[in-house]
Amino acid sequence: MSNNNSPINSNHFLENSLSKQFYEVIFKRRDVRSQFNGEPIPEESLRRILEAAHAAPSVGLSQPWDFILVTDVETKTNFQSHVSQERKYFADSLTEQESKIFEKIKIEGILESSLSIVVTYDPTRGAPNVLGRHAIADAGLYSVCLAIQNLWLAATAENLGLGWVSFYKEQFLQNLLSIPKTIRPVAWLCLGPVTHVEQTPDLERQGWKKRRGLEEFIHYEQWSL
Amino acid sequence: MSNNNSPINSNHFLENSLSKQFYEVIFKRRDVRSQFNGEPIPEESLRRILEAAHAAPSVGLSQPWDFILVTDVETKTNFQSHVSQERKYFADSLTEQESKIFEKIKIEGILESSLSIVVTYDPTRGAPNVLGRHAIADAGLYSVCLAIQNLWLAATAENLGLGWVSFYKEQFLQNLLSIPKTIRPVAWLCLGPVTHVEQTPDLERQGWKKRRGLEEFIHYEQWSL
Repeated sequence: MSNNNSPINSNHFLENSLSKQFYEVIFKRRDVRSQFNGEPIPEESLRRILEAAHAAPSVGLSQPWDFILVTDVETKTNFQSHVSQERKYFADSLTEQESKIFEKIKIEGILESSLSIVVTYDPTRGAPNVLGRHAIADAGLYSVCLAIQNLWLAATAENLGLGWVSFYKEQFLQNLLSIPKTIRPVAWLCLGPVTHVEQTPDLERQGWKKRRGLEEFIHYEQWSL
Repeated sequence: MSNNNSPINSNHFLENSLSKQFYEVIFKRRDVRSQFNGEPIPEESLRRILEAAHAAPSVGLSQPWDFILVTDVETKTNFQSHVSQERKYFADSLTEQESKIFEKIKIEGILESSLSIVVTYDPTRGAPNVLGRHAIADAGLYSVCLAIQNLWLAATAENLGLGWVSFYKEQFLQNLLSIPKTIRPVAWLCLGPVTHVEQTPDLERQGWKKRRGLEEFIHYEQWSL
């Protein structure tokens, strides 16, 4: 496997399995802020990325997602200003030490990336009897996230960068894009060609946080065992 | 592309790209209920699947997920009984026509599959200052779903089947596995070798719902345009 960031030894891969290239995509994927070069996205790539998102599983086959493609500079600039304001709110909550690190961290590439994709959740789709959602209302929201991860991995497979921006108030985004009140915005994604993809997450490279290994996240039979 | 279910023409794939096998996995993935054969999961496969889940992006690099591996027959049987009860609650809400279709639909493979993996969300991890979560509290929950989709796709790449069971009350599952009150169960996943993977989702094959094409889910610049 070409990506040194992968914890998985390529010798373990079976011949004729689908897994080798698949895992390369899984471990190559990063949350991109700084490397967008503004080049256009090939139309075929964008189509494949959206088809991948749309091929995600969804509770009761409700397909509760929508994709709003945003290129308009005024819209992007308005959103970027809002995000900058939210950045300040967050910065104000930090300790002095955290602030010093956070100052250097770029949190979005809204204006530099070629395309923004806003992904939304429609709880009314397929309602009232959405199969598999009667006991867990959030199951529909979960489906939208599964679509987003498909989209993100497909962008990576297409050698594009993608960054999820979450420094915004949902109400602001709803107003900005005339999203109906019944529909919930879930993500603002920045997509586009990049100069390169970093091997280590930005937050780790810049000292905000270190990833922890898998072992401590696994439990057997019960939480406490 | 060998999978007829894919809307994507393989002629469009670039040479030397990561994309061909990757998209095969994306379109091969199904929500599996009926095809588990109970064979053991190769240890190396399980390891790669969990590493893929753990390689998911997470808000503020918080890695807020945990994985509880359940093989105990008594635990699985107790959960399966609870799910059967929840199935009845849902069935009671259906119209006569819906009921007839739902009767034939299998909603879980808890006892037939080789392993159950319960995925949970810990909102306290990395708190209080989780970078990217101050404005959207659910961003942590979203991260857990991204990990689940990585896990699901990796299972598919390993030629295993995976089914997400969502007919349960979170409180029941919390008690069953001694999950602390601060931790939220997000999914019960059934994993294991299968006789085959269907090309069409069960709910579509059995007439519950038909998938709709991508076109109507795309908006340009604003929701209404």
